[in-house]
Amino acid sequence: MSHTLLVLAHPRADSLTAQVAGRVHRRLEAEGRTVDLLDLYAEDFDPRLTPADEPDWEDREKTYSPEVRAHMGRVLAADEIVVVFPVWWYAPPAVVKGWIDRVWNYGFAYGRSKPRLAGKRMLWLGLAGGSAKEYAKSGLGGSMEHQLRVGVGEFCGVRQTSVRLLHDTELSGVPAALRPARVEEILAEADATLAEFRA
Amino acid sequence: MSHTLLVLAHPRADSLTAQVAGRVHRRLEAEGRTVDLLDLYAEDFDPRLTPADEPDWEDREKTYSPEVRAHMGRVLAADEIVVVFPVWWYAPPAVVKGWIDRVWNYGFAYGRSKPRLAGKRMLWLGLAGGSAKEYAKSGLGGSMEHQLRVGVGEFCGVRQTSVRLLHDTELSGVPAALRPARVEEILAEADATLAEFRA
Repeated sequence: MSHTLLVLAHPRADSLTAQVAGRVHRRLEAEGRTVDLLDLYAEDFDPRLTPADEPDWEDREKTYSPEVRAHMGRVLAADEIVVVFPVWWYAPPAVVKGWIDRVWNYGFAYGRSKPRLAGKRMLWLGLAGGSAKEYAKSGLGGSMEHQLRVGVGEFCGVRQTSVRLLHDTELSGVPAALRPARVEEILAEADATLAEFRA
Repeated sequence: MSHTLLVLAHPRADSLTAQVAGRVHRRLEAEGRTVDLLDLYAEDFDPRLTPADEPDWEDREKTYSPEVRAHMGRVLAADEIVVVFPVWWYAPPAVVKGWIDRVWNYGFAYGRSKPRLAGKRMLWLGLAGGSAKEYAKSGLGGSMEHQLRVGVGEFCGVRQTSVRLLHDTELSGVPAALRPARVEEILAEADATLAEFRA
């Protein structure tokens, strides 16, 4: 299997986040992989977990909502998951948090002796407005990395989880004439990050 | 001003989280405070930030959506904010993340020389299924605390942010006959946590 679930989380189709996801998409296809693009906003994914999708700790075979079961199928079909998201408050947006809350559920993503996600690899690729220096100084990049890599990935037995940030992606301070070149730099950095994840 | 914005985030009105919020509510009123209960699920709060509420880095006076402006008013009216939530994936649920994403916005919660939240105090009160020992060992409790206290609170100049967890709150393993006593213990712990936050 060489099939990637590519998760995109941004409300605007013309966002830099969407451009990065587009670049990743093309690169994956150029590698000969098939790609399932899950655009959470475009698909109107509701991140609010309701009782239909609440774990039942006494029944790991619980039948979740049809929507969640469909998402579980998309996760299972992939050997690799890549999430492209803007970093808001040193964390993924609510729509991504809710995708985890609802879809990575008990009896599916965890709670079994043989985790169903055990063989998969996962890349969290975040666009951060702040600089690498700021993130290192505050330690907030590290806290997010820990929560996603250990609290989500290792918790579910994912084989490899990488959290990588593209920094200085807030372009309002960049003169308009220089922005296209800066966007190209960021896209090239996304390419390099994906290559590194593969290595 | 002695007015608390009490934020509750759980899909079921009969949840232990809602019971804890109810206990906190009564205690606050017993102290003579007024309370604005923001039940995010009951009020059908949509945590997905849309372009209407996207920050405009070139205009901190941007007029956000009417819904967000109403929520900003509720935040401003309080000198204290208490958020009662279940810990899902070592983080608050998506509906809480989206409340921050949308309402704690540029020009309101940050981006001004005199932050509008500067004088306020904030308590994050989370119900965690796991034990304190597990959380300490993995460090995931610390990562969440760091993200909420520094990444949200200090970032906005909130005077005091406390993140406190009630542990072992997943009761399916507790025999039914013993659950009412365990619930009482947890509610008493919530009382004690609030008193400590006040001290």
